[in-house]
Amino acid sequence: MNVEDGSDMLGAPRRFRGQAMIIGQRVRRPDAHDKVRGTALYVGDLPVAGALEAGVLRSPHPHARIRSLDVARARALPGVLAVLTARDVPGSNLIPLIQSDWPVLAEEYVRHVGEAVALVAAETHETLAAALRAIEVEYESLPALLDMEQALATGEIMAHWKVRRGEAGAALTRSDLVVVEGVYHTPHQEHATLEPNGVVAQPDGAGGMLLRGAFESPFSVRRAAASVLGRDLSSIRVASLVIGGGFGAKDDAASAPAAQAALLAAASGRPVRLLLSRQEEMTATSKRHPARVKVRLGATQDGHLFAAEVDILLDGGAYATLSPLVLSEAAIHACGPYRVPNVRVDAKAVRTHKVPSGVFRGSGAVQAAFAFESQVDLLAERLSLDPLELRRRNALVVGDETITGQKLSASVGLREVLDRVAEASEWTARRAVFSHDAGAVRRGIGVAASYTGIGLGPVGRHLGPSGGGASVVVASDGSVTVAVGTADAGQGEATALAQIAADALGCPLELVRVIEADTSRVPEGGPATGSRSTLVSGNAIRDAASRVRAAIEGVVGDGGLPWREAVALVSQKRAGLAAHGWAIPPEPTFDLGTGQGDAHMCYTFSACVAEVEVDTATGEVHVRRFTSGHDIGRVVNPMSAEGQVEGGVIQGLGYALLEEHVLRDGRIRNDGFSTYLLPTVLDAPEVRTVFVENPYPWGPSGAKGLADAPPVAVAPAVTAAIAHAVGVRLCELPATAERLWMALREKAGKAHG
Amino acid sequence: MNVEDGSDMLGAPRRFRGQAMIIGQRVRRPDAHDKVRGTALYVGDLPVAGALEAGVLRSPHPHARIRSLDVARARALPGVLAVLTARDVPGSNLIPLIQSDWPVLAEEYVRHVGEAVALVAAETHETLAAALRAIEVEYESLPALLDMEQALATGEIMAHWKVRRGEAGAALTRSDLVVVEGVYHTPHQEHATLEPNGVVAQPDGAGGMLLRGAFESPFSVRRAAASVLGRDLSSIRVASLVIGGGFGAKDDAASAPAAQAALLAAASGRPVRLLLSRQEEMTATSKRHPARVKVRLGATQDGHLFAAEVDILLDGGAYATLSPLVLSEAAIHACGPYRVPNVRVDAKAVRTHKVPSGVFRGSGAVQAAFAFESQVDLLAERLSLDPLELRRRNALVVGDETITGQKLSASVGLREVLDRVAEASEWTARRAVFSHDAGAVRRGIGVAASYTGIGLGPVGRHLGPSGGGASVVVASDGSVTVAVGTADAGQGEATALAQIAADALGCPLELVRVIEADTSRVPEGGPATGSRSTLVSGNAIRDAASRVRAAIEGVVGDGGLPWREAVALVSQKRAGLAAHGWAIPPEPTFDLGTGQGDAHMCYTFSACVAEVEVDTATGEVHVRRFTSGHDIGRVVNPMSAEGQVEGGVIQGLGYALLEEHVLRDGRIRNDGFSTYLLPTVLDAPEVRTVFVENPYPWGPSGAKGLADAPPVAVAPAVTAAIAHAVGVRLCELPATAERLWMALREKAGKAHG
Repeated sequence: MNVEDGSDMLGAPRRFRGQAMIIGQRVRRPDAHDKVRGTALYVGDLPVAGALEAGVLRSPHPHARIRSLDVARARALPGVLAVLTARDVPGSNLIPLIQSDWPVLAEEYVRHVGEAVALVAAETHETLAAALRAIEVEYESLPALLDMEQALATGEIMAHWKVRRGEAGAALTRSDLVVVEGVYHTPHQEHATLEPNGVVAQPDGAGGMLLRGAFESPFSVRRAAASVLGRDLSSIRVASLVIGGGFGAKDDAASAPAAQAALLAAASGRPVRLLLSRQEEMTATSKRHPARVKVRLGATQDGHLFAAEVDILLDGGAYATLSPLVLSEAAIHACGPYRVPNVRVDAKAVRTHKVPSGVFRGSGAVQAAFAFESQVDLLAERLSLDPLELRRRNALVVGDETITGQKLSASVGLREVLDRVAEASEWTARRAVFSHDAGAVRRGIGVAASYTGIGLGPVGRHLGPSGGGASVVVASDGSVTVAVGTADAGQGEATALAQIAADALGCPLELVRVIEADTSRVPEGGPATGSRSTLVSGNAIRDAASRVRAAIEGVVGDGGLPWREAVALVSQKRAGLAAHGWAIPPEPTFDLGTGQGDAHMCYTFSACVAEVEVDTATGEVHVRRFTSGHDIGRVVNPMSAEGQVEGGVIQGLGYALLEEHVLRDGRIRNDGFSTYLLPTVLDAPEVRTVFVENPYPWGPSGAKGLADAPPVAVAPAVTAAIAHAVGVRLCELPATAERLWMALREKAGKAHG
Repeated sequence: MNVEDGSDMLGAPRRFRGQAMIIGQRVRRPDAHDKVRGTALYVGDLPVAGALEAGVLRSPHPHARIRSLDVARARALPGVLAVLTARDVPGSNLIPLIQSDWPVLAEEYVRHVGEAVALVAAETHETLAAALRAIEVEYESLPALLDMEQALATGEIMAHWKVRRGEAGAALTRSDLVVVEGVYHTPHQEHATLEPNGVVAQPDGAGGMLLRGAFESPFSVRRAAASVLGRDLSSIRVASLVIGGGFGAKDDAASAPAAQAALLAAASGRPVRLLLSRQEEMTATSKRHPARVKVRLGATQDGHLFAAEVDILLDGGAYATLSPLVLSEAAIHACGPYRVPNVRVDAKAVRTHKVPSGVFRGSGAVQAAFAFESQVDLLAERLSLDPLELRRRNALVVGDETITGQKLSASVGLREVLDRVAEASEWTARRAVFSHDAGAVRRGIGVAASYTGIGLGPVGRHLGPSGGGASVVVASDGSVTVAVGTADAGQGEATALAQIAADALGCPLELVRVIEADTSRVPEGGPATGSRSTLVSGNAIRDAASRVRAAIEGVVGDGGLPWREAVALVSQKRAGLAAHGWAIPPEPTFDLGTGQGDAHMCYTFSACVAEVEVDTATGEVHVRRFTSGHDIGRVVNPMSAEGQVEGGVIQGLGYALLEEHVLRDGRIRNDGFSTYLLPTVLDAPEVRTVFVENPYPWGPSGAKGLADAPPVAVAPAVTAAIAHAVGVRLCELPATAERLWMALREKAGKAHG
């Protein structure tokens, strides 16, 4: 199935007798039981006979030359089965990604604190620790580049993407425009999953290897392990276990531990378990890119956006990992979900001596949205327009083009989302009431909007095959097994895909099981990144299901038999009911040189409203209510969709108000959950979720995707609400009490000065 | 793919550039390394976190009424998680087989020693043992029916199959015929696999269950577990691990432990490990049917078989399991691979109070061959014809009909097999030389022939879907993963299937991996029974491969690209290369009422020559050389085919000379390898293997099947050689030294009397 064919996915298949509507039903997740009872088997729980404990010797320096590396003493310890350095890599030492600059093990230089220098596999934890201590490394410390502006100045540029549309520079000189400017800073963000990265590698004795772990993108892990071992892809089987939180933490970041465990297993001939500690996870694996975004935004007096110049700078850290992709998302989403006829975007990612930055829910779009939405809010203030009305006026509608010149032909529900969010948040009434707050604690309400491209986007084509596969097998009693290549990272994808399968087959939902992602079951598709699972795997399932239905109908006709009877009849005729399916999303026509073209197959449109209470004496901000609205095409399972929104909002609030890494000499110092502050359930406001259903013709049953959207516009809505409450507009995240208190003091100083 | 279509499987597909011939190559098994090093993970080695130890309380009586069964004390023990009796079975208590009379747990009556009465799952082995002891059962012992003739007399008939062709009774009265008669007895045979049955059941927390173990027929196990739990088929996932010997021991017999473990896992909500002890395996699981076969065989003076009456009696034991299937095989193969125009076969299986008999390599055919081949040998003696020449004269050839009226249209290589075996064994010369032996130790050479139906045969249709599925997935680097529904029981099937896949795809063999059988990967096919794996799974692979090739050729054409380049090109075009395949063997037209029709899709034709040394003073027999020849269509992997033949010959020699259960009061007393004598490597003669390639048009690359054939004619060849050496024809197996010494003494007595 090639969705470029334009074959309409919206039409529900003819139902078997007794078949109920499935898409849109609230369905409980089958994994809920195990997770709540604590019986779910995460990689750390996985029993593996004879498994060696593995560990990584990591660089203490942000930048150094390895003068000497002596593993002889470590190797000689009894109970040590393997000690490996870059010299011992049989295949390629570079993880195959967009730029493939990321070594599995450091060679001559280390370029960030936490970089892997040597690997050990030993019989026990104690021996492992002793062996790691026994490795002798002599470093020559080198100057570290830790500031991204300085990296930009010295030309350490990983990637530079542009968007050019109309004549932004010239337009912004027009005297009839209102122009606002700002510079915005956002920090690293920790994925802070409950489960750190981990992997169990088991050689199969026949030249093959099974890798099990928490993998968001099993095929990326397979590519990395096959490449480092110098073996063919099918000799490595990668299966995703239950994942204790993804958000991008188990995407690019999972490849290195998987490749390292595979190396140790191959060298020792034994199963190997490599579990990252929380400290390793926090100091040595990729996080959200710190960013500096400059925006100049011009609008007409009647509030129509007319021109924008956006300069984005991302700190990519020491290696490119998925930075080029994240950067392209920042560029594509730089001007929000609005019509802007004149645009210049320059987005650059620079190389520093910090831990590599990587993908993180809403990659790139989050940083861009904070800057641009803050500017839109400022513009509304300058124009004395209601900020929600300003957004409504400029919202993309069907037929409009995005800043990359992509014509949106369907499923653009932003106006309706804004209207519904306004209604659910009682925007107008509360905005008016809060404006009169005058005490020490003041309330404010703010809005922000965003859109989120679904799929890998234009840089994704460098990540290998971008389709998605599915296998559908029907047993003789009508029960169904579905396999896909995208992992359920805990968001409930498996449930949504079961619904899509049941809908497409026309069978009862309770007969469908979606099993864990396993690279041996379906052809290699792209990673789960980019909210693409439901769409790509869903369409692949529909493709497979249509073949299965054709086989059934070939035997029993399309008469009104109940599903189980129809399948039984087919089984009697000795037919085997199974098919592989495949879906190819429309290929981006985006030109990375000009920044013009179709960047994503479709977009999810979002808007949110934050309601805050600010204690002007302390700078403390409490988010009291939060409304989050999304046009995600069709909602497959409202229950899990609401869960995704609620989780994304809290994650966005942590980013907006609390989360910050403390780096000293390139080392992250707050490397545990006791020092890295996260929002807890006590910090969670009441979240109201709004879904607008604006079916996407090529989505399975009209669905688009949701995962990345919820956090994107949270921070600017919060800072807008703070500005509404106390008149101070923060341009740097997180909006901590200290930072706000300082800003309030400064404002008061100015007022009195 | 429906092989009934008559689509020709012989034509090799067009090769990609650089593609070598693969079928017929000697290929080393990928599992050899792990098995030889002891690192292969059998079910007993499988680590399972939190697994409970499970055990079965078994009946000490061959026949009794359960007056009371009290599990309260056992349930009350700390550390006991589940104690189950027949009352606790949520679904059906009968294992779904042909007659479905076999309870998972005894209800009111026990009908054989070792029958399962209650199940326990406990935290430790010690607690398990204590709980089993704490179950209180009061039995009322009932008279046990332990003799099959008595069972026949009392009408305890499980099944009765007939073959009627011409007028056997009338023909045998003709005075111009030479008629020989005989009654033959064969014993139980133990599969004697190195690994007893075992299973690990793991609930998945979402209403599903994973069963892993040594399963020859994963789909039968799934059906049993789903049925006993009252769940749908796809909710149970059955995966075969490395199997420590099959031969039928892990076919029907695996269903009971799997169902029992599944019950305990469902009841406790915990993983459960149920491993049978050697004693349990030997006393409580199915074995080869003891048989009594009467033959009257008439031939013309010039040595043409003309009429035969065969009465077969099999001891089915307490429950039918697969007895009706085994019995039909005995009937179908009752008159060997010969033209016999007048035939009456009556085959009956009776119910006794012994452990159920089940499938065992060469099921039914072995017992029939011993009787009939012995009679043919006797006939040669009467006619003063060379016994090999007599067989040659009567051998089925293309165009002939079997005794069931099945017209053989292709691949009937018996004459060539006989010629080649005669040559390899130096038959004529040695027969002549040995005839002059006169000392205390005398040599003899004997021949026997057989044919073996491939596939499930006419009763197999009652075992569920009889097709076979395969999934072929190609990675972007051209490496391939193949999944099928038939398990490799250690015979090297996976290697043969990899060769078939590589041949059909046109790719290098080293790129293909055949992974373990898993019921979630392909649609339900029949069991691996009946040497059908290569043929059915092989054709399913070819079906899937043809779709994959079509997809490749749709993109790159059929031009002479090397495989990897062709696949890379397809991947660039974003196509996903995967397909499910399906093969349906020709449906048997056999009528169980008349015993006429096509009984099997095809037959493997075999002949063997045994050369023995008999010590007339002790009755000891040493087999010095053994030649085993087979027309198996096309030989896919000569290395593993030779291994199958050698193993089958040794297994047949054990049956011929050594193996015997000692039953007392219905209980097998020699229940360990120290008391049940098996041939060791020291007993193994030099085995010469001969393959005749007579391609079967509907077999993958012309292959038929081999697994069941090698042991079939071993015993009659050995007893014929003994008869040649010392003039004594044994009609009861095994031909132990004691038995032969007695016969020699009796013969000497007669000579002197």
